[in-house]
Amino acid sequence: MRIAVLGTGSVGRALAARTAELGHQVTIGTRDVAATRAGEHAAWAAQHPEVGLATLAAAAGDAELVANATNGSGSLPALTTAGAANLAGKVLLDIANPLDFGAGFPPTLSVHNTDSLAERIQREFPQTKVVKSLNTMTAELMVYPLRLADGEHSVFVSGDDAEAKRIVTGLLVSFGHTDVIDLGDLSTARGTEMLLPLWLRLYGRLDTANFNVKIVR
Amino acid sequence: MRIAVLGTGSVGRALAARTAELGHQVTIGTRDVAATRAGEHAAWAAQHPEVGLATLAAAAGDAELVANATNGSGSLPALTTAGAANLAGKVLLDIANPLDFGAGFPPTLSVHNTDSLAERIQREFPQTKVVKSLNTMTAELMVYPLRLADGEHSVFVSGDDAEAKRIVTGLLVSFGHTDVIDLGDLSTARGTEMLLPLWLRLYGRLDTANFNVKIVR
Repeated sequence: MRIAVLGTGSVGRALAARTAELGHQVTIGTRDVAATRAGEHAAWAAQHPEVGLATLAAAAGDAELVANATNGSGSLPALTTAGAANLAGKVLLDIANPLDFGAGFPPTLSVHNTDSLAERIQREFPQTKVVKSLNTMTAELMVYPLRLADGEHSVFVSGDDAEAKRIVTGLLVSFGHTDVIDLGDLSTARGTEMLLPLWLRLYGRLDTANFNVKIVR
Repeated sequence: MRIAVLGTGSVGRALAARTAELGHQVTIGTRDVAATRAGEHAAWAAQHPEVGLATLAAAAGDAELVANATNGSGSLPALTTAGAANLAGKVLLDIANPLDFGAGFPPTLSVHNTDSLAERIQREFPQTKVVKSLNTMTAELMVYPLRLADGEHSVFVSGDDAEAKRIVTGLLVSFGHTDVIDLGDLSTARGTEMLLPLWLRLYGRLDTANFNVKIVR
């Protein structure tokens, strides 16, 4: 699959490296290619020569599946820069969380309760098939779930398009996820985004990000 | 321990029956004793003659530990009726969730993100030691955790008073809980109350309330 990963942070890199490792054709999309190339991204890029680097628009335009791995506060602007036409008809795997660090740590949520970042993105890009997933765990476990407890933990998918959820679920399973829970339509992303306040407190308390939720039933 | 359970719903009954079974002296507090006695509560009460029934104020006044098992929307009024003096100096185990069913199912949260029901209660009753716990699972699993996956799932405690959390943790362990996670001060209850939107969607999806979260690490 031709995959565009929008965002050069730890989530974007983890996803890009892992999908490339699995044989996909992967391009990271960034706001300013020259700046990214000249910055601290260079060392990572040198170790992952198989991952391309392009503008947000070029990366998205060329892809079949686009992953939103930008910061939640910058997701809508980044996707707008990527361009509605470049996103139209495609699966958008939305991993971002609407974290607001304006008042320090722990952050609050800038969207919550009666709306979600995923739904905002879907409303802004109605031709795109938004699937929320992977936003409830640390980057490494997103793509290497077997590194914790033999993969005995859960990942959620939310989305309005069944075929898009099927494609994302296939990708998750290829990473090693064994308990993919389809929560239902995209409004169920409110629930997974609102898991972040608990996640952040656990992160502080357990002194590691290497944990995840399992839904025991 | 002398325990008052405020609330006659499924959570209140489960907690009252289980703590009585464990040898505590338990009284259910209700707004209108005569109405509760004459209503559908009568059959349950007949099966649990060891559990007392009293007004909110009498039950709280007589107890060492008070459990708030009222509906979240009615918790502050119920506790006000119970009386600040009757709650002063005591541990208040707050199990309620601020669910707002005004727009149907699934409910939204009436407090969230930068505040929680637990913190509201604490601010209203500063002489009381509020501990939030058990609000992230169905009533039966609160008090019989071993009935699911041999107890291999997690329960959280949040509170500002270390001794009060120790007392609540002891109670949880006596129920059979093996993974009690102390999240920190009472503001961490925002995280567990905000787990409810996910819990409610899982409830809809899994078609059972017999599930719980385990924090795998």
